[in-house]
Amino acid sequence: MQADAPIGVFDSGVGGLTVLRTLIEKLPREHTIYLGDTARVPYGTRSGETVTRYALLCARHLAAHGIKLLVVACNTVSAHSLTALADALPIPVVGVIEPGAQAAAARTRGGAIAVLGTPATVASGAYQAALRRLAPLSSVVARACPLFVPLAEEGWIDGEIPRLVAERYLSDLRRAADTVLLGCTHYPLLARVIAEVMGPQVALVDSAEATVQAVAALLEARSLLRTGSSAARHGTLCTDLPDRFRAVAERFLGRPLPSVELVDLGTFSHS
Amino acid sequence: MQADAPIGVFDSGVGGLTVLRTLIEKLPREHTIYLGDTARVPYGTRSGETVTRYALLCARHLAAHGIKLLVVACNTVSAHSLTALADALPIPVVGVIEPGAQAAAARTRGGAIAVLGTPATVASGAYQAALRRLAPLSSVVARACPLFVPLAEEGWIDGEIPRLVAERYLSDLRRAADTVLLGCTHYPLLARVIAEVMGPQVALVDSAEATVQAVAALLEARSLLRTGSSAARHGTLCTDLPDRFRAVAERFLGRPLPSVELVDLGTFSHS
Repeated sequence: MQADAPIGVFDSGVGGLTVLRTLIEKLPREHTIYLGDTARVPYGTRSGETVTRYALLCARHLAAHGIKLLVVACNTVSAHSLTALADALPIPVVGVIEPGAQAAAARTRGGAIAVLGTPATVASGAYQAALRRLAPLSSVVARACPLFVPLAEEGWIDGEIPRLVAERYLSDLRRAADTVLLGCTHYPLLARVIAEVMGPQVALVDSAEATVQAVAALLEARSLLRTGSSAARHGTLCTDLPDRFRAVAERFLGRPLPSVELVDLGTFSHS
Repeated sequence: MQADAPIGVFDSGVGGLTVLRTLIEKLPREHTIYLGDTARVPYGTRSGETVTRYALLCARHLAAHGIKLLVVACNTVSAHSLTALADALPIPVVGVIEPGAQAAAARTRGGAIAVLGTPATVASGAYQAALRRLAPLSSVVARACPLFVPLAEEGWIDGEIPRLVAERYLSDLRRAADTVLLGCTHYPLLARVIAEVMGPQVALVDSAEATVQAVAALLEARSLLRTGSSAARHGTLCTDLPDRFRAVAERFLGRPLPSVELVDLGTFSHS
């Protein structure tokens, strides 16, 4: 495996771009290739078997691009399918749940952690299980915040509406938690509003940052960090409606997307 | 075709239950069978060919239950696939767009119609095309309101948050429209808030009601209205995660759901 190979990142849609954004900021030399499976988004409403089947299609497609490491920037896939992906691929696979839970466990002072996520992530219990293991003396509350995803996708990330929505979801957690874990890749866009509602005494932990730290540590340990000095290349793929993907994607990524390539994963469905 | 046969209703998810609810209210003697294709929801982000393929699976599954009429309670399918469904089935097929557009065309005084819908419905241009045909002298504005669907699914249908969201989407339409067409099956849950924001001078037209009127007229003309006096039976099917479906479904239907049956459309995929 070559250090010059790209890092693959995938999600069911645009959310994982917050992880890619952090990856590009922290590891600016790395080539990346992102795949948003927009033909099958959202994954959160599928059964676990279906999610794993879709995840394998995405992972194999990225593997065919010669990636050196796969980042699963999707909470649903991270909850259900990491073992299946690791079994299918000869490269390291990093999900978002374990790094996020580790960061929250390291950060909490009083051991009161609130996990915010989609209904599917909360129902999966994956963050709760990881925190019980990593911070066994903590008390963990998980809260589903379904409006946060469309608010982020609409770009309504400050002002009265997101503040009231965050109040409604979170006000009773203000005194019940000292650490809030953003357990959905869309939520970093709403981090400022969430921080305001929770108050300055509460620490916010972003799974995206924790995940990128795990990626950096893993690549360094395996001497796979890219050392080349030529500009890093960033490819973006999606599986349906690239124009709509791009419009939202640029807000999530915080920079223009030069091009979005439409790919058909059906050709990789043998298995 | 027997008058005693059920009416079939399908949608990609729970939204079509607002149509079913109106159907049960207006035609209480009719047996019904509802199918929510929750394994493939949402349809709005798929290409037209994919939507038609899914719609044919759903329609054939309901046809196998011996339905006498099919209601397509899904704007995306109504926009893309009605002809393919009519070609494939020997029973009448009624979509939501034509009845909704007819009702708005009949209702408008000043010829200024605003259509509210999902981004996919608005982008399809189906309501706009139907209104150009049915009310050629009208001016039509279409507005995508993506937050309305999660607000309805959360049950946040009154109070400050939905009012502010509706203000943000609609305030500039207040003087520009005399008639508002609710072009998404989720939106009737927010009808009161939308009416408050638009003001009393604006008429609200609900596609669900218009669709049920079209169904009643069609059944009556063909002598297919059920006359039996035994209690009507209502079956509910979905294709993934029946428990989650049921929790939201009861709010949309306005009554308890006795049981939700999980079905696999894969066995009907030959074609």
